[in-house]
Amino acid sequence: MTPRRVAWILPGALVACLLLAASPKRPGSPDLSSSRLIDLTHAFDERTIYWPTSPSGFELKPLASGQTPGGWFYAANSFCAPEHGGTHLDAPHHFAEGGQTADQIPLASLIGPAAVFDVRVKAAADPDYRLTEADVRAWEAIHGPVRQGSIALLCTGWSSRWPDRKRYLGDDRPGDASNLHFPSFGEAAARLLIHDRRVRAIGLDTASIDYGPSKDFPVHRLAGEAGVPGLENVANLEEVPAIGAWVFALPMKIAGGSGGPLRIVAVVPEAPAAQ
Amino acid sequence: MTPRRVAWILPGALVACLLLAASPKRPGSPDLSSSRLIDLTHAFDERTIYWPTSPSGFELKPLASGQTPGGWFYAANSFCAPEHGGTHLDAPHHFAEGGQTADQIPLASLIGPAAVFDVRVKAAADPDYRLTEADVRAWEAIHGPVRQGSIALLCTGWSSRWPDRKRYLGDDRPGDASNLHFPSFGEAAARLLIHDRRVRAIGLDTASIDYGPSKDFPVHRLAGEAGVPGLENVANLEEVPAIGAWVFALPMKIAGGSGGPLRIVAVVPEAPAAQ
Repeated sequence: MTPRRVAWILPGALVACLLLAASPKRPGSPDLSSSRLIDLTHAFDERTIYWPTSPSGFELKPLASGQTPGGWFYAANSFCAPEHGGTHLDAPHHFAEGGQTADQIPLASLIGPAAVFDVRVKAAADPDYRLTEADVRAWEAIHGPVRQGSIALLCTGWSSRWPDRKRYLGDDRPGDASNLHFPSFGEAAARLLIHDRRVRAIGLDTASIDYGPSKDFPVHRLAGEAGVPGLENVANLEEVPAIGAWVFALPMKIAGGSGGPLRIVAVVPEAPAAQ
Repeated sequence: MTPRRVAWILPGALVACLLLAASPKRPGSPDLSSSRLIDLTHAFDERTIYWPTSPSGFELKPLASGQTPGGWFYAANSFCAPEHGGTHLDAPHHFAEGGQTADQIPLASLIGPAAVFDVRVKAAADPDYRLTEADVRAWEAIHGPVRQGSIALLCTGWSSRWPDRKRYLGDDRPGDASNLHFPSFGEAAARLLIHDRRVRAIGLDTASIDYGPSKDFPVHRLAGEAGVPGLENVANLEEVPAIGAWVFALPMKIAGGSGGPLRIVAVVPEAPAAQ
């Protein structure tokens, strides 16, 4: 090879190499060292919202709080809570007899890239709004196909109504779940996401993966039968970009649980990554 | 510039560029897309170990389980638990009056690179073994200085004794905490890790960040005063490498809690990264 040929080949290789170095390591995987952490969890307290028919709410009972005889401070509590309230998990077993209980769900079903569907404008106009297949396809026209193994999160804007029970559920009469109004997933959109796009979990910022007026809970049954966990009463989804973040949705590991308290966190890259 | 000079300069640039592309993005930060997930959490059930003086243990109460009139399956439970038992968090407030409660701890204190100290051999010979400053320095001679912001995890091997109360705590008499035996952090090592190396949290696979015979809990008091969370009854630390993994330690977000149930997960890179 002549020096002249070398002088042409090497710049080409250099350009290819620079392009390789500049591309993200893997699409959609934020760098843990430089990412922003967003807490998507409401705290548990006496105002925590449970389903109207729940026999009880969150109760914290102090066991100790104050100076010990040894001279140091010590505090400890016990607590009681139904599984399904506050920011929480629906295990597949919640609506599927043979489905995984809270402790049996593999971590791989709870940790993955987020796909966030923002329906705030539509939900503000119609509190019974349900995500449609058309919404999913419109999202895909912008962001590309929903990536297999995504955690599909629906942002309705309802998080800002927490913990106002009347505004959040549409009704605040204890024991009566007959007149609830809040947005959620539609059945066809949930089917598309779960069976076709094969998301690993679905979640949202309202009280249920079925919308307020639902009486037969088709999305719960669909998700349960498919072994897909549901994440309910999630907070702060407005802060999570449509794509590029990863979600860690870690429930309390209750043996035999149909669900339970969830701590859910988004890991958001400094600059949104391409999908 | 002559073609001959170009022929020498460009290969040099190419080699430098290839080295850059081959190096990890940031040291110690695993790639989420390709990492292995390890659950470091014991499930909560009727055998879950609480402190001998705890007034109660974990109790799950079925609210519903079976076919509904609508024809689908439905299950839900409620539960009660003291904050300090099973795999759980000690919030700084547990031993420090003005310290952060469970809901106030920033996520940055709960998510970070792991530094795992393996004292299994020493603990097997002495169940009252406490991590020493010399142990930390010996670790650093191999792995380099403990990185600021690490989550320091002590692997004693006690996880394999769970949930055998007698073997795990050293005594299984209810109400009597006077004769406990299990390994933990020593005070000087904890001080070195917290004040000098500035770790963000400390945790281990026994019941307490103070060893079994302790009556004055110096490590609890030290950690509480420094605003450093403690992670207790952690599982499976044998599977986490000394460096290179990241830990997500996500507690139930109990408002005003002195601690609470913790779901803790290690993200382990496929090949251990350099620190």
